[in-house]
Amino acid sequence: MAIMMPEADQAVLARRDGIVAALRAIVPGEGVIDSAAEMLPYESDGLMAYRQPPMVVVLPETTAQVSHVLKYCHEQGIKVVPRGSGTSLSGGALPLADGVLLGLGKFKRIRDIDFDNRVVVTEPGVTNLAISQAVAHAGFYYAPDPSSQIACSIGGNVAENSGGVHCLKYGMTTNNVLGCEFVLMTGEVLRIGGKCTENAGYDLMGLITGSEGLLGVVTEVTVRILQKPETARALMVGFAEVEAAGECVARIIGAGIIPGGMEMMDKPAIHAAEAFVHAGYPLDVEALLIIELDGPGVEVDELIGRVETIANGCGSTTCRISTSEAERNLFWAGRKAAFPAVGRISPDYLCMDGTIPRGALPKALARIRELSEKYQLGCANVFHAGDGNLHPLILYDANKPGEMERAEAFGADILRCCVELGGVLTGEHGVGIEKRDLMPEMFTEIDLNQQQRVKCAFDSQGLLNPGKVFPTLHRCAELGRMHVHAGKLAFPDLPRF
Amino acid sequence: MAIMMPEADQAVLARRDGIVAALRAIVPGEGVIDSAAEMLPYESDGLMAYRQPPMVVVLPETTAQVSHVLKYCHEQGIKVVPRGSGTSLSGGALPLADGVLLGLGKFKRIRDIDFDNRVVVTEPGVTNLAISQAVAHAGFYYAPDPSSQIACSIGGNVAENSGGVHCLKYGMTTNNVLGCEFVLMTGEVLRIGGKCTENAGYDLMGLITGSEGLLGVVTEVTVRILQKPETARALMVGFAEVEAAGECVARIIGAGIIPGGMEMMDKPAIHAAEAFVHAGYPLDVEALLIIELDGPGVEVDELIGRVETIANGCGSTTCRISTSEAERNLFWAGRKAAFPAVGRISPDYLCMDGTIPRGALPKALARIRELSEKYQLGCANVFHAGDGNLHPLILYDANKPGEMERAEAFGADILRCCVELGGVLTGEHGVGIEKRDLMPEMFTEIDLNQQQRVKCAFDSQGLLNPGKVFPTLHRCAELGRMHVHAGKLAFPDLPRF
Repeated sequence: MAIMMPEADQAVLARRDGIVAALRAIVPGEGVIDSAAEMLPYESDGLMAYRQPPMVVVLPETTAQVSHVLKYCHEQGIKVVPRGSGTSLSGGALPLADGVLLGLGKFKRIRDIDFDNRVVVTEPGVTNLAISQAVAHAGFYYAPDPSSQIACSIGGNVAENSGGVHCLKYGMTTNNVLGCEFVLMTGEVLRIGGKCTENAGYDLMGLITGSEGLLGVVTEVTVRILQKPETARALMVGFAEVEAAGECVARIIGAGIIPGGMEMMDKPAIHAAEAFVHAGYPLDVEALLIIELDGPGVEVDELIGRVETIANGCGSTTCRISTSEAERNLFWAGRKAAFPAVGRISPDYLCMDGTIPRGALPKALARIRELSEKYQLGCANVFHAGDGNLHPLILYDANKPGEMERAEAFGADILRCCVELGGVLTGEHGVGIEKRDLMPEMFTEIDLNQQQRVKCAFDSQGLLNPGKVFPTLHRCAELGRMHVHAGKLAFPDLPRF
Repeated sequence: MAIMMPEADQAVLARRDGIVAALRAIVPGEGVIDSAAEMLPYESDGLMAYRQPPMVVVLPETTAQVSHVLKYCHEQGIKVVPRGSGTSLSGGALPLADGVLLGLGKFKRIRDIDFDNRVVVTEPGVTNLAISQAVAHAGFYYAPDPSSQIACSIGGNVAENSGGVHCLKYGMTTNNVLGCEFVLMTGEVLRIGGKCTENAGYDLMGLITGSEGLLGVVTEVTVRILQKPETARALMVGFAEVEAAGECVARIIGAGIIPGGMEMMDKPAIHAAEAFVHAGYPLDVEALLIIELDGPGVEVDELIGRVETIANGCGSTTCRISTSEAERNLFWAGRKAAFPAVGRISPDYLCMDGTIPRGALPKALARIRELSEKYQLGCANVFHAGDGNLHPLILYDANKPGEMERAEAFGADILRCCVELGGVLTGEHGVGIEKRDLMPEMFTEIDLNQQQRVKCAFDSQGLLNPGKVFPTLHRCAELGRMHVHAGKLAFPDLPRF
């Protein structure tokens, strides 16, 4: 394990039986799990290279139970790791050997569907997709759509500020959440926000969103729902040069057009995807853009024409426009299968997640190509081009001596390049343990100290999810990443972005 | 003064000469003002019923100067009140007798216009409108448009999380700001966010936005700019009952239509506005909606038709649709002049600012009518109906014994009604001193304590803007409001919403 986690507190472990009994008194029945076999599914999240059995798993069903569990742990100085569905990709839900794993999986009820106010009030264990399904009959949906949406929970989405292919136009989780019920480590219950967009006092909802389980536990969420767009059509545009595709993205955005989605793949990714799902991608191009426009039919038709003109102006070599839903879905099929497809052509790959200002896209792509030559390793680029959220997949073979080290150095250089170009270490996968030790590359000590002071305002003893996001107890110069071996991921059936 | 402010610290006042000299050493030239006459313009913000000369005014020009001023004040235990253009309506920039007034008026430069990334990087003293003007030649604008936009500063917009008639569709300030440079009370300088929408660590940008100058001082802001919509058209729809207009608003939103603006006026407001600006408003209706649709021409035409159908279904008695820019502007002219117009028909009025979930609009309007009868005082309703942001104007005559007290009780009942209906004490005017003592009506002690802990994470000595937003030193049962006598406001030339 490249990432150092805090050492387990033997004094806490010695009290394990008493702790389990105390938790059973709070959450009766099958809500407390302490056998090694039954705790196995909780050993890791989607960052499967890192595994750790928790001391005990507790699965409360009510806010009062969550409150009592946290109050007890606070009084007893016991660490707590919150967990939604465990689909996170940066190790944010990795258990601690001396910590309670607090699972929200039993909070499965949608509490209120309010079409007048266009909001849904839901428990945090409800999946992202289930919210859209619950309002689909009336033509509404919940906009943020991480690719794990059939499995990931809305509470986890709040913790990670999850995105998806449509967040360019419709915003990340933080733009679509209006309020929550929130339990502090002390067991105190806060009501934050509500059905209005306005707030009095500090915007705690904004602060909590994306805080990766370090500030408290969400026990109810109020989300905004939107009316489904009347139409969606997609263009598939090929380019002879990666930089030209990057330039096309910059010009579309610069022209004030906001596509519903704008995704990019480079040659290695195109070939891998086409061999896997036969989406009809052109194999003679260096880069492919899939651009989706949605809205009223007349508007979509006009925007399709404008995007086509811009693409021509950037030297596109092929351009196909979907004429049916089946064709639009086919355009997306290859993109959505790109991660498993790359897993088929390389024994191992490192999945990176960084963000750059959109205008810097051509520069970043050129730099990744240089690095690929320097490190003599292939790299398949698959990313949310409209957001500047890069997901380079560095191809290597762990069985060849030195390749993994070269891959890690390559990945670190990519993230440093993102920061140099004015970008961010992460896009939508969070920091977790994966990028924790890279935070000082991006933030000054003054910045990190202020972040820590905010943490202390919520959790003065540092009991909630310690060792995640911030390099506190151990600073490790090495960088962690999502290691994927033989294409195996935590949820291999789900497409990965 | 109904609102109690902390008593001036005589020990600090005794050191005034030394403090002025120390500030002059940091900000040379004319950047320090200490004469009573020259400090006059700084005695209040837009909440003109409350006036207080500061101990001294300092007008730094650089981030380094802001940092040094704050560091000095922090070390010396001197209170600081930050101020943008002073157009705020809730007393957030009211000086303290023993405090330094820190004006950002000299931060007047736009630093970077970046069309590729659709952002503008600007100093905080630049006016809201100046940002739109700087990018207008390329067809872009900055979306949030408070009615004080020709005077209010972007830094003040961040402090208040300002809205405007277009925030229903385009969001409040918090949805349009990507990053800032931020000076802590200790003088430490943070860089928060940047040109990307993504962040690593806690979302401090969200937390700072709307924090009313209690957490630090913004010295640079990065805002998102949008392409101007191709077309905008407005409907003016009259109703024989206020509740029917409220129902129409709820149905438009419920249908998934997001107008660029959706404003409502009731009969007293309509008559006052029509008498003042002759906008052609119907005088035989109880309520008027002005609904603007913007976007591509074809989309706007279609939406206009849908809104008209919904309005008919709600029993509208008149409906006019603008056929030219001149007509659209005329529809808005009365609405924009409604505040001064009401000032002409009543010797005094109380302007309230509360928010309710949109679906509760008919209920809130009915309740306000009941209260109007109970207190035997007129009330003109003018508000951002699409956001549920109410601006009831309670009409009274301060020269008639007991009327002011009745008006204040009426206003308090309206805000309590907003909270009961699941709403918020404020919409876009902030809490400041005006609604400070009403915060416990909305928040539990647990909520307020958590807000205070967040404050302490930024300003452990409570030196930044003390006495604003939170009822700390003195809890006063009485409610404060924006008193307007004979229509006089701080900036009488600006329309008020």
